[in-house]
This record gives sequence, C-alpha cells and structure tokens, in this order.
Amino acid sequence: MSEAINKHKQWQGKIEVISRASINTREELAIAYTPGVAEPCLEIQRDESLAYEYTRKGNLVAVITDGTAVLGLGDIGPSAGMPVMEGKCALFKRFADVDAFPICVDTKDPAEIVDVIAKISKSFGGINLEDISAPRCFEIETELQKRCDIPIFHDDQHGTAIITAAGLLNAVRLTGKKMGQLKIAISGAGAAGISIARLFLQMGFGDIILCGSKGAIYDGAPYINEVQQEMSLLTNKDKITGSLADIMVGADVFVGVSKPGVVTEDMVKSMAAAPIIFAMSNPVPEIMPDLAKAAGATVVGTGRSDFPNQVNNVLVFPGFFKGLLSVRATCVTDGMKEAAARGLAAVIQESELRPDYVLPDAFDPRVAGVVAAAVAEEAVRAGVHRINFLPAHDQPAANR
Amino acid sequence: MSEAINKHKQWQGKIEVISRASINTREELAIAYTPGVAEPCLEIQRDESLAYEYTRKGNLVAVITDGTAVLGLGDIGPSAGMPVMEGKCALFKRFADVDAFPICVDTKDPAEIVDVIAKISKSFGGINLEDISAPRCFEIETELQKRCDIPIFHDDQHGTAIITAAGLLNAVRLTGKKMGQLKIAISGAGAAGISIARLFLQMGFGDIILCGSKGAIYDGAPYINEVQQEMSLLTNKDKITGSLADIMVGADVFVGVSKPGVVTEDMVKSMAAAPIIFAMSNPVPEIMPDLAKAAGATVVGTGRSDFPNQVNNVLVFPGFFKGLLSVRATCVTDGMKEAAARGLAAVIQESELRPDYVLPDAFDPRVAGVVAAAVAEEAVRAGVHRINFLPAHDQPAANR
Repeated sequence: MSEAINKHKQWQGKIEVISRASINTREELAIAYTPGVAEPCLEIQRDESLAYEYTRKGNLVAVITDGTAVLGLGDIGPSAGMPVMEGKCALFKRFADVDAFPICVDTKDPAEIVDVIAKISKSFGGINLEDISAPRCFEIETELQKRCDIPIFHDDQHGTAIITAAGLLNAVRLTGKKMGQLKIAISGAGAAGISIARLFLQMGFGDIILCGSKGAIYDGAPYINEVQQEMSLLTNKDKITGSLADIMVGADVFVGVSKPGVVTEDMVKSMAAAPIIFAMSNPVPEIMPDLAKAAGATVVGTGRSDFPNQVNNVLVFPGFFKGLLSVRATCVTDGMKEAAARGLAAVIQESELRPDYVLPDAFDPRVAGVVAAAVAEEAVRAGVHRINFLPAHDQPAANR
Repeated sequence: MSEAINKHKQWQGKIEVISRASINTREELAIAYTPGVAEPCLEIQRDESLAYEYTRKGNLVAVITDGTAVLGLGDIGPSAGMPVMEGKCALFKRFADVDAFPICVDTKDPAEIVDVIAKISKSFGGINLEDISAPRCFEIETELQKRCDIPIFHDDQHGTAIITAAGLLNAVRLTGKKMGQLKIAISGAGAAGISIARLFLQMGFGDIILCGSKGAIYDGAPYINEVQQEMSLLTNKDKITGSLADIMVGADVFVGVSKPGVVTEDMVKSMAAAPIIFAMSNPVPEIMPDLAKAAGATVVGTGRSDFPNQVNNVLVFPGFFKGLLSVRATCVTDGMKEAAARGLAAVIQESELRPDYVLPDAFDPRVAGVVAAAVAEEAVRAGVHRINFLPAHDQPAANR
C-alpha cells in the first residue's frame, strides 16, 4: 500500500468538525442550545448581518466541486473528488486559520449546480469553487455571483492566475524585460489558461497568445468555444495561427497549464532572449526544469515542490479568503486578484530575488497575511466590504 | 446584554472545522494534497464505498434545516436558524464524537429541499433534518430517504418520539400499568406528536388520541390534514371528539408537544389513577410539574433541565447517529427507533427507578454508547448495514 493511501486510511478524513462551545454543565447546555440559543436566533432574524457575529459564517468557506475536473484526473465524479476537497479545507485551516467545509454536488448541469449552491450559501462567508470543468466553470461562477451576496472564487482559474502573475512580476523585475511589451504564449485554454490571460491583460503585461489542444486561439478559429472566441478578440494581436511551437517563436514568456512534455528544448531555443517559463502541468511539467534551463531559460517555475519556484495555489487561496472574510466582502473583484498578485510578488525583497526564487515558499509564514491584507484593502477601496476591520476570528477555540 | 448573546459573540460560531492531517513539511503537503491525494481519489472512483475509508463520510452528519419551525419560534428563516443548527452540531461532537455540519437550505418548497439535499448528500454518512415544519417534514423525509442510500432522520419527529417512549416505558414499569391497555392523550398533532403516536403504536402501548389545536383527531374531522387523517384510522378507537380536556378524561398518559399552560389541574384530576405526564412544551410546559404533582400525577417529565425527568433529544440523536455510522447504515428503520427507546429506558436499572428518575440525565456518559449499540445491532438484524463492526472513528485527531 502506498504512503498516500496508508495515510488517508489512518486519517479517516482530513477534516473534523469540533465544538467551540464548552458544554459540560446543564447551564452551559442551556446557553449553547435551548433555551438560550433562541436569543441569537431572534437577533439574526431581526438583522441578518448578525449571522457574522453569532454563527461561524464570518470565518467559514464552502469548498464545492462537481467532480468534473479533479486534478489532472478529469471527470471522476463528486465522491471521488472528496479527498482533494478535504485536502483543500485542511490547507485553508493550516495556512490562514479559515474554516472550510467540503461539499460535492451530484449533478453536472451548470444551472442545477448554481441553484444548489445558491440555496445552501447563506451560512457561509464565501464559496471556493473547485475542479469544475471548463467552459462550464465560467458560467457557474458568474451566475452564482449574481445570486449570492458573498464572494465566489473559482480557485483553479483565479488562484492559478494570481500566483502565476506574481511569479511573472518578479521574473520581469529580475530579467529587466519591459512590462507592456512582453509576448506571452499560454499553453492550455481551459479554466486556468483563460483566467491567466485575463489577469495578465488587466495587469498590462503585453500581448498574449492562447493555445488549446487544437492550436492557437485566434478570432474565428473553427475549434474554439464561446469563451475562447471572446478571448481571441483581446489576445493574439497578430492573429498567429498554428501549433504551440509556432506561437512560442520569439515569445518572452511561456505559461503551461496543459499537458506533460509538450514543450521541447528547441521550442525554448526559439523564444526571445532570457525566456521565462512557468510549466505547471502536474506532476509532469510541459518541460522539465533542467531541460528548459539547458535550452536557455532564465527563470523556470513548475507546479512541483521538488523544484524551485513552485507555482502553488496554496500561496493564494487561504490568504485571499482570509482577506475577503476579514471585511465580509460581498463579491470578488478583478482588482483584488491584481492586488493579491502584487502583494504576493512583493513578499520577496528586491535583494532576495534570484532566478530560482521568484515565488515564496509554500510554507513562508508571511504570505497569507500579505495576501489577506491586499485583498481586504482592495475590497474596502472598491466598496464591496461590509466592515472595515478584521474581526478576531483567529482566536483559538476553547478546546484547541 | 444577556449571557446567551454574550457567549455567542465570544464563540463566533459554535463549530470549527479543523485539519486531521499534519501539514508542516513539503512531504506532508504532497501526501495530504497534490500529488498524493490522487491515489485515494482514484480508489474511490473504482469503488465508491471506499469514501467511508478515505474521507470523513464515515463519521460525518449534515444537520439541515429550512428554518421553518425553529424551536418554538416558528418560521424565522434559514439564517436565523443557524445558531440552533450549530448548537446541535456541537452536541453531536460533545456527546458522541460524531462530526456534524450545519446547512441551511434557502427555499420552502418541499420538492426543492429534497432535491438540494439529495444533490449534496454524497459526502455525508447521514442526514439529520431539523426544525422543518409539519406536515412538509413528513414528505421531505420520506422522499429524501427514497433518493439517498444514507440514513435520513428528522430529529424533531423521531428523537422526541424515542426519548418519550423511553420515559413512558420506565413510567409504565414504575406504575405497574399494563402495556397494551394504556389510554394515551397526545396534545400536538404536528411533527413530534405524529411521530410519537406512530412509535407508541408500533411498540404496543395502547390506544392513542391525538389532539391538534382545533380538537381531537378522528376519522373525517374537518380540520385535519392528510397525515392526520391517516393517523385517525390507527388511533382514537372510540372516535372521541372534542377538546383536549375531553380526551384526557380517563387517560393514563398525557404527552404534550404543544403549547404552554394548556393543561389544568382539573384536567389531570380527570385522568385515570396514577397519571403519567410528559409536558414538553419548552421553555414553558403544558402544565408545571408542581401543579401536575399536586393534581395527582405520579410521574412528570418536561423539556426543562431544571426539573426531574428532562425529555431531552440530546439523549437520542448523538448515539443514534453514532450507531448508524458505525455500521454504515443505508436508512433508518422503525425497528431502530424502538430499539433505541428500549436501550435508553434500560440504562436506568430496576432498582434505581423512581418517579423523578425515569429518564437518564443528559450528561449520563452511558447513554450514547447504549443507544448506538441498540441502533447498530438492529441495523445489522434488519440487513440495512454495510459493515458489521465499529470502525475506529473515535480515534482522536492528531491535533486535538
């Protein structure tokens, strides 16, 4: 038996729901439950915002999947996706003391998924969508945000985009490449690829060419979906057609959220001077770091923990939600994503910056706080907050 | 500010979601999350029953409400119901080490409620329905059990019925009244009253007369709903009509799940010799214990913790679900309810039995285990179990 299976057997679940209330006497029972509990109920009925005060809503995120795009495993169904969701919840707690609870929705119909989540959303302070396949994930996130007054965040899209943008910001600082003039090739035009392209555009990195499994995304390409067609109008200024190899010629940056081994040394050699490579297919990257380096890449990041510059969403989502919750945000804005990326990049001081250190370590204790502050500040600036200050949700439970 | 409000402010929620996995090194991160987590995912995809092994499903209950019948407060909505749901979850953990998570469903349409719950049910080992108004609750529970292969239990109905039946079993032992020949008046013909009547019938206590707010439930009464009409064919053999006072004449037992103060001393005096009274309206009972005693009642129970014989569901639901989870039961059966009631009654030895001690104390440490064993044994006997033995879900989490 492998160590992962062994550990999962031993854990019997990676999350646990404990009581924050001491219930050891009749008096305590009468306060935590009937009859005392009637008072906070009536207060919340009078003013629903008090749910943030008297229930766990203010520190609670739902991690929700339909199991259609779990890791690189594809559509394995909601039950089989649960170990990932529980893992994510464990990371929320470990890295930002945010309580997160995993829920799998047993339907693949986008409208039904939106409806189910909207109807159970009231007791949460935010919703983290997870491992939902593209292009369904775009519609689900947008529609859900319309129906809910709490933030909705699809981590596979935006978490990945934010951490990649942070890495690229630092790689640009390091290589002296010019913001706004970069040529960026993105391999993978699904949830992550599209969101990365959108955030890069917003942040003004330069021209972007997306490439799906059938080739470059350009206006009118016969093999692209609706969302990709929208993107084609914002990207690929020169309407380059062809394969990934074609769009990488002369590119400053390669971003891979696609498949193992699709990039060769020759393709790296065809790029502009000082290539920046983020090859995030996991566990096997689009090109292995040693090959990319040998072919001339200056900065190389991957999704793996055993190479430098790990592009790991765990640097984003715990702090991002911590920030959202701290001001009781009503939604997620594009500005927050940019703020999080800039905050994350700035964790690494100018003097520390090196080709193999453009992203902080997953366990860097500064990260969650910096990301949370950036998100909270931007929420307040944009006016999508309910309160100004961080409530003391990080107080330890009585029984911890 | 009252102590209950003060405490709820301080707790900031009565539940908390913690991690059972240690995640302090890259290696641990790689096992709890990617890439290690892919293995248990694929195993569950191959064999869905492994979700009980590799996720929290085997010890996890959803506590779900629509907020339509919260305590005695009525339809206060799903958000305002959350303090009760969280309290219930805290009690699950405190009394049986069962993990329970509160969910409020923001719709009042029974079909929609069933649909939402069914679609999020896969990651739970059982569903505790809570504070859903009658008669909707009957349909919701029945339809949900048809769609799910995990047990569905509406605690307001069955928890109350089980604990009342346990109290009555002991009161009958104590008073020497004859099983099968009791005349029982039940005030309240909603969720709890109907379920109590059903369980009493199944256990063969005797003839039952239900009384709603408009009077006795009898075949063809113009003011009764469909479920009450069904019950009218099984109860009230003599087709007694009239008010609560009328049906209490000559009754051996009064069970109140209705309103404060609806029973007078004269009504108790009109009952048969050695009256048994369970007046469970909360916090103010149908008749106060001192008045009932003064009017001749032999055994008096209430819902209150400050009088003897507290009829408290906390004696039932934690152990009941513990038993269901221990054998991974597929449903709840009537036999389990009876077994739980008999097990609970038997916690009090013959020699200990007294008029003011027919029910165990809420904090009696024997109760949850006895109820769990009774339910698990009956599940196995009825063949609605998936495994025979209690898995070690009561192992403490690493970080507790």
